Amino acid sequence: MSAPSLPDFAARHIGPRESDVAEMLSVVGRPSLDALCDAAVPGAIRMTGALDVEAATSELAVLEELRELAGRNQVLTSMIGLGYYGTITPPVIQRNVLESPAWYTAYTPYQPEISQGRLEALLNFQTMVSDLTALSVSGASLLDEATAAAEAMTLMRRTSKAPDGAVVVLDEALFPQTRAVIETRARPLGIAVAVADLTQVSTAQELRAAAGDRDVFGVVVQYPAADGLIHDWSALARAAHDAGALVTAAADLLALTLLTPPGEWGADVAVGTTQRFGVPMAFGGPHAGYMAVRTGLERSLPGRLVGVSVDSAGAQAYRLALQTREQHIRRDRATSNICTAQVLLAVMASMYAVYHGPDGLRRIAGRVHATARDLAEQLAARGAEVAQGHWFDTLRVSVPGRADDVVAAAVEAGVNIWRHDADTVLVSVDETTDPGEVAAVASAFGPGSTDGQEGVVDSSTTAPAEPSWPEALVRTSEYLTHPVFHAHRSETAMLRYLRRLSDRDFALDRGMIPLGSCTMKLNATTEMAAITWPEFAGLHPFAPDDQTEGIRDLVAQLSDWLCEITGYDAVSLQPNAGSQGELAGLLAIRGYHDARGDHERTICLIPSSAHGTNAASAVMAGMKVVVVKTDSITGNVDMDDLKHKIVEHEERLAAIMVTYPSTHGVYEDTISDLCAMVHDAGGQVYVDGANLNALVGLAQPGRFGADVSHLNLHKTFCIPHGGGGPGVGPVSVREHLAPHLPNHPLAPAAGPESGVGPVSAAPYGSAGILPISWAYVRLMGGAGLARATQVAVLNANYVAARLRDHYPVLYSGHDGIVAHECILDLRQLTKDTGVSVDDVAKRLIDYGFHAPTMSFPVAGTLMVEPTESEDKGEIDRFCDAMIAIRREIDEAVAGDGVESSVLRHAPHTSATLVGEWDRSYDRASAVFPGDVEPADKYWPPVGRIDGAYGDRNLVCSCPSPEELAAL
Amino acid sequence: MSAPSLPDFAARHIGPRESDVAEMLSVVGRPSLDALCDAAVPGAIRMTGALDVEAATSELAVLEELRELAGRNQVLTSMIGLGYYGTITPPVIQRNVLESPAWYTAYTPYQPEISQGRLEALLNFQTMVSDLTALSVSGASLLDEATAAAEAMTLMRRTSKAPDGAVVVLDEALFPQTRAVIETRARPLGIAVAVADLTQVSTAQELRAAAGDRDVFGVVVQYPAADGLIHDWSALARAAHDAGALVTAAADLLALTLLTPPGEWGADVAVGTTQRFGVPMAFGGPHAGYMAVRTGLERSLPGRLVGVSVDSAGAQAYRLALQTREQHIRRDRATSNICTAQVLLAVMASMYAVYHGPDGLRRIAGRVHATARDLAEQLAARGAEVAQGHWFDTLRVSVPGRADDVVAAAVEAGVNIWRHDADTVLVSVDETTDPGEVAAVASAFGPGSTDGQEGVVDSSTTAPAEPSWPEALVRTSEYLTHPVFHAHRSETAMLRYLRRLSDRDFALDRGMIPLGSCTMKLNATTEMAAITWPEFAGLHPFAPDDQTEGIRDLVAQLSDWLCEITGYDAVSLQPNAGSQGELAGLLAIRGYHDARGDHERTICLIPSSAHGTNAASAVMAGMKVVVVKTDSITGNVDMDDLKHKIVEHEERLAAIMVTYPSTHGVYEDTISDLCAMVHDAGGQVYVDGANLNALVGLAQPGRFGADVSHLNLHKTFCIPHGGGGPGVGPVSVREHLAPHLPNHPLAPAAGPESGVGPVSAAPYGSAGILPISWAYVRLMGGAGLARATQVAVLNANYVAARLRDHYPVLYSGHDGIVAHECILDLRQLTKDTGVSVDDVAKRLIDYGFHAPTMSFPVAGTLMVEPTESEDKGEIDRFCDAMIAIRREIDEAVAGDGVESSVLRHAPHTSATLVGEWDRSYDRASAVFPGDVEPADKYWPPVGRIDGAYGDRNLVCSCPSPEELAAL
Repeated sequence: MSAPSLPDFAARHIGPRESDVAEMLSVVGRPSLDALCDAAVPGAIRMTGALDVEAATSELAVLEELRELAGRNQVLTSMIGLGYYGTITPPVIQRNVLESPAWYTAYTPYQPEISQGRLEALLNFQTMVSDLTALSVSGASLLDEATAAAEAMTLMRRTSKAPDGAVVVLDEALFPQTRAVIETRARPLGIAVAVADLTQVSTAQELRAAAGDRDVFGVVVQYPAADGLIHDWSALARAAHDAGALVTAAADLLALTLLTPPGEWGADVAVGTTQRFGVPMAFGGPHAGYMAVRTGLERSLPGRLVGVSVDSAGAQAYRLALQTREQHIRRDRATSNICTAQVLLAVMASMYAVYHGPDGLRRIAGRVHATARDLAEQLAARGAEVAQGHWFDTLRVSVPGRADDVVAAAVEAGVNIWRHDADTVLVSVDETTDPGEVAAVASAFGPGSTDGQEGVVDSSTTAPAEPSWPEALVRTSEYLTHPVFHAHRSETAMLRYLRRLSDRDFALDRGMIPLGSCTMKLNATTEMAAITWPEFAGLHPFAPDDQTEGIRDLVAQLSDWLCEITGYDAVSLQPNAGSQGELAGLLAIRGYHDARGDHERTICLIPSSAHGTNAASAVMAGMKVVVVKTDSITGNVDMDDLKHKIVEHEERLAAIMVTYPSTHGVYEDTISDLCAMVHDAGGQVYVDGANLNALVGLAQPGRFGADVSHLNLHKTFCIPHGGGGPGVGPVSVREHLAPHLPNHPLAPAAGPESGVGPVSAAPYGSAGILPISWAYVRLMGGAGLARATQVAVLNANYVAARLRDHYPVLYSGHDGIVAHECILDLRQLTKDTGVSVDDVAKRLIDYGFHAPTMSFPVAGTLMVEPTESEDKGEIDRFCDAMIAIRREIDEAVAGDGVESSVLRHAPHTSATLVGEWDRSYDRASAVFPGDVEPADKYWPPVGRIDGAYGDRNLVCSCPSPEELAAL
Repeated sequence: MSAPSLPDFAARHIGPRESDVAEMLSVVGRPSLDALCDAAVPGAIRMTGALDVEAATSELAVLEELRELAGRNQVLTSMIGLGYYGTITPPVIQRNVLESPAWYTAYTPYQPEISQGRLEALLNFQTMVSDLTALSVSGASLLDEATAAAEAMTLMRRTSKAPDGAVVVLDEALFPQTRAVIETRARPLGIAVAVADLTQVSTAQELRAAAGDRDVFGVVVQYPAADGLIHDWSALARAAHDAGALVTAAADLLALTLLTPPGEWGADVAVGTTQRFGVPMAFGGPHAGYMAVRTGLERSLPGRLVGVSVDSAGAQAYRLALQTREQHIRRDRATSNICTAQVLLAVMASMYAVYHGPDGLRRIAGRVHATARDLAEQLAARGAEVAQGHWFDTLRVSVPGRADDVVAAAVEAGVNIWRHDADTVLVSVDETTDPGEVAAVASAFGPGSTDGQEGVVDSSTTAPAEPSWPEALVRTSEYLTHPVFHAHRSETAMLRYLRRLSDRDFALDRGMIPLGSCTMKLNATTEMAAITWPEFAGLHPFAPDDQTEGIRDLVAQLSDWLCEITGYDAVSLQPNAGSQGELAGLLAIRGYHDARGDHERTICLIPSSAHGTNAASAVMAGMKVVVVKTDSITGNVDMDDLKHKIVEHEERLAAIMVTYPSTHGVYEDTISDLCAMVHDAGGQVYVDGANLNALVGLAQPGRFGADVSHLNLHKTFCIPHGGGGPGVGPVSVREHLAPHLPNHPLAPAAGPESGVGPVSAAPYGSAGILPISWAYVRLMGGAGLARATQVAVLNANYVAARLRDHYPVLYSGHDGIVAHECILDLRQLTKDTGVSVDDVAKRLIDYGFHAPTMSFPVAGTLMVEPTESEDKGEIDRFCDAMIAIRREIDEAVAGDGVESSVLRHAPHTSATLVGEWDRSYDRASAVFPGDVEPADKYWPPVGRIDGAYGDRNLVCSCPSPEELAAL
């Protein structure tokens, strides 16, 4: 009775059994995993010892440790506000979205035919944002309110005709974290930021004066303002337009159910968060930020946009629209590097709106407003002075000299409020605030006449109140009129809608998603368990430190482990996506050079094969991109060209950005030399951590020559992809860069004082999901992590070995060994037969698979990364399908040709089966090829989608009957 | 901005919106809900006031109240054993079975075509039990170990040829609750129970002697015994067989991975629990009990049995086998009344075995055994005397005069152990026991040499130990050899298997399940939330009272509410299924008569339309059933015949059992008279609470004349059906019957001292799921509950009104009003056209619906109960489908006839679409009739199943390739 050598959990996380590994090694032609990895990874960079991460423990024990950490958080009622509010996640949404693998293990909807469910949910999200803001086009979510505001700044800069040197003006009552993130973003771009009281500005001249007598390209205001006050910004908007500037409103969607929306008073852009639509505060994130723009700006929107198009049968179908914007078009001239959205959270927020509908949202807002009015009355009764003016949910209260005492008394009463300054506090109420909490917080402001009667507080639901502000600011326009916001009112109906949508999609819970570079590995249930515990989910990001010890200890421990794994000395978990981590890493490099007086070092070398984001990030960090050639045969960096470029730019060399293993899935031998050459020239080495999962336990970038990396916790450390976000993109650095990591104005402990400012709204970014990665490391231990890497490499090499005779494997290292992924080269095949990667990808859907990554990093290829979590049975099933498709190609060529073949018509819906059948192949071959079991068949809900059609006829919110008819 | 008049949750639980209600009322022809119910419910029984249940509160507040209750439980490490053990629920199973609506909202698999997923899971369960016990046929689960043992007793009585008056002999080391439940069951049947030390019995003579010189029909032993000791029962088995008796082993499945299984040493029957296969203790339940029997006894198995058969295309398909046994065949001569299984829990246990496989289970058992050995060594080192003999996981420890002190010291150390008597304690370890807990419990036995070193205890996983018992008892045979127990070893593979199975099924999360009498209403997420919280899930049912205050308060509060709702004075929540509640209610009546000296009152009147269970329960309670006629036109009890039967049996009249509203879905006017007549004759009135959901808030059986009712919390109070269990069947009584409710030998507080004994293994039955019903009542409040009833009545009447012109509605009250369900009479249609209820039911699958109840209570009819949770849209969709089917019938008759029609071939699988098509209708009509949306189509995985074929060729475990080939 021998125990397995692996920790119990690692044996569950890793797909192949011991016996499978032996069999697969023999196919690959290597005697052992160690031998395989020794051959694959250059000796110069191999770790000599084992990872110094504590030994794994069981799932039960990890859950107990997490409970202990959770127990050291203290969840008070939050009335802090500032963009984070208590909210009620409808349990049916929590269980059937946030806790459902069908939603959280889904990938980004690049393959729209198998993503119609989440695309519909995102279209609902866009409709919700667009309706509530009264701006015609909304994107499918951004990372958070602050980064969305920063994106709005660059969007305004791109689209305004104001001259170079024009500034952006922020109203002084912007959320402090929003202002800080805008400033972090503006600095490297050379954009000047002015901060002023804009409430009285009503002419272009006044605006110019507020900007310090400078031209203005954009204005950002908070609506309602950070201090709770509601201003009529229509005069400001006119003034800004007169001055050639655009106007961005950072707006609270709940308030907009009652307030005149930004699009109606002249804003060009609205940004904000949808957190309070049912997404827990979670110590700062993840939440879906939003951006909506007026007509004419839609092609400048950063991030993802879902649109309506048609499929091969002419039926309505959704897909990502205008995919060729910004990073892709502009690449090294881009000013946004956004890749990830916050899909899972956007889906939750959209479903909150679907479940409540316009009436429900309006009622919730009315109750919140009524509660705020109750509170104001109680404060007045206690002699506290509430700021004059109009407010929705937040009161600015004057307590001269007593702010600290009042805040402390509120904590005693179980409530956190916000210390604005020594004389002022802010108190925000939300849909969770009950009369008992109102009474409790009021008591902190001093004695009142009703004290001692708290026991008789009526705990029944507060009746909604009508708006108390001037009529010009009372919303009169309708919103959420589309039937979807009216059809799912009972829990039963909602449950079925969620199931119906998720059933249209293909996620990891159905089968393999063999995406190169995106690492769709297991998101284990134990890893996911803690994120919904109230002790983590209920924390406000700006709660006092002594209430957040548990989560901050978790952050510290995870940081330590990431340092050990990467070989770096310091890490910041603040970046809430890889793109933000990249920016933070490059900002650290700039900060380092600047601190040494090397202000001219702004050249960033980037190999031609790099991900588009790299160049965009470099531009955002104020660098100039110089491209280094890649060897067309090996895919490796051309070392001669590199040498040449280094010599050419030596004095100005800031950094090189490389991905390791390369984006081609190869461990390049030259990495050590590359690092040395760049260092010798005074540059820094940035290793993109996208492929860190091929290094964990085998090699440490921080030890083999790199200075900084960002990681993708959603790739390597099991944060689920969630259908296209959340991502988490920590940045890791060697000691000399540590002083230049991000920090946060409201959380000194979150980063170095000398840091570059915040890159995300919350001090620890998406802290709420860090328990996932923490649990993964804790469950795997050093040995399990290293084994996972080895098996990932084995699985990729096994796929390469099985498919090589059918599709050439494009790049490989010594002896044909690949790293953790492999590229199948279809270019010759396409040339010879006309069968495209698209045809193969769509045909794989008929076989019950998600497609590999298409045409990245090389056009005309498919990149496959099986990950360590797929077992031999599933990998074989995939290889069999690929081989069968190769045979279908031959048959098509030999037969009636590709145009009429099963490949070109793929994927096949069930609807196609019942009509006339005039195909050159039979129905069974179409839908049940290979060993597809009819009883377990995944049916794509639509046929192949015509993306270009939708781009020409852009519809980005739930289509009206007229729009549908026009499709 | 007006708030809705209903509590927020009630507006989510109830399907139709206010505006829908108005529209539906107009179709029904009633001005208001009140008017409808006034017309439907006889005035004589109507409640005059409102329900005195506290006002509803919000979902958030209810969760907080539940957390408060949970916080008042104290979860210590349990080493009590006695049939309840700590276990690790694999998180992937918890989330994707126990917390997945696709599993828990499924109905009993009476419609096998849409139940293949859970039928496969149950077949795995049967295979697991059969393999581990080495007995050829296992059922699909029973209620718990104790009731399974009681069922084994009656099975042995039925099948033994021993003469009348023969006794059952229990070994004295049977679990105390098992013995007590057997005694409760034996008493009314007139079966004598002997208890003896059977360990030394090896001849028929010795057995007869142990039985007090009486004939013996059966023997029950515990294996391993309650005190942990392992005995070789093979000599006893031979002796029993020599004496014409059968042998039942109550066996621990985990131990059987290492121990010679009962089937190999001669047991005829094995019973037990599968709790420790990943199902939380949950203060006693629900868990899946099991029973397996040797070849030859399979047709005597109580409860459900899944078997393999073939579908219309000849493909393998599962369905319930031998459905016409016991209750159905024997009815008033039945000795089992089991209807419910514990499907959801059986699925969990089977998946635990699938996930671990034979090697994993053996390793777990080996670790448990190793831990027990560690503990024994540590106890020996402390001078405590462990009982001589062999044991697996439980130690009997002699502590003369110190048992109470040791138990108390163990509690201090955080561990519950079992006080066997003043001088002896029992300590059981399980897969969760870690070395720290071993050390902690050892410390309770007195000082030892390693004290003070607990800090250095090695917390790594204990290595499995080989069995320490004699070779004859060491298992050598293989088990779980079927591929399904070897194929899903990684979490990814397990996740996909669970998804694949659930995708084959149709549950409430896909659409309406319009089952008459079974009330498939919403199981709200908030209601389900608390059942997996460790504070409820982690409690041992025999934990000390001071550790279980929270759950017992919840039980008390729920009991109070149920009393108020039903109008009774006392309730017992112990019965863990409706059948057990029925038995308990009838035992209370018998107890009452007996206490008054009316020993001869044993006649139970039952209307001919009653559910089969009623008669079976009466027989089990030792009563004689006399059938009362039912009026064939109205479906009502024939009052003349009743009068006649009362007169005929007056002196011997014990009770009448009626269902109200009747099983025909009608509020009979005569109920008050009926009660009075029976009471006048000295009888008691038993109102079957199956249809209580049509009374809540409108009428109270305890007030309108009934003396006792059992309720079905899974019908009226939102316990999910779970694919066929758990059920919860509390019994409610008026004051005079309260002294005769169930009690429990190990929990004095759980029932009256004068009670009839336990009817379930655990003091509070399925206590672990009572938070569901508690939450439902708390969320609805009195007003919400009453409204739910009204809308349920409206929905049923709306269906009746819409369908009446297409299918005659069989029974109704005044003015054509039905209660909460309606019967569609197809008998004439069948006679005229040959289209059967089966044809219609199966055709509904093509339309995306579960079938209504077929041929109950009247053969040839369909009974529909929409429940209050279905909204108007879904009900209309159902009615439209029924009307369209009616049209299809006409077309078939007018066309090519029924035999070749779309009805007879229903349901249609996707596989049928791709073959030759020689049908008289087209493919689209087959699979996309009505408004079925191809993208959202539910595809039945198999065609119509031939049940009889499978009964003739019985295969009740996962079929071998040979068996498959023979199908």
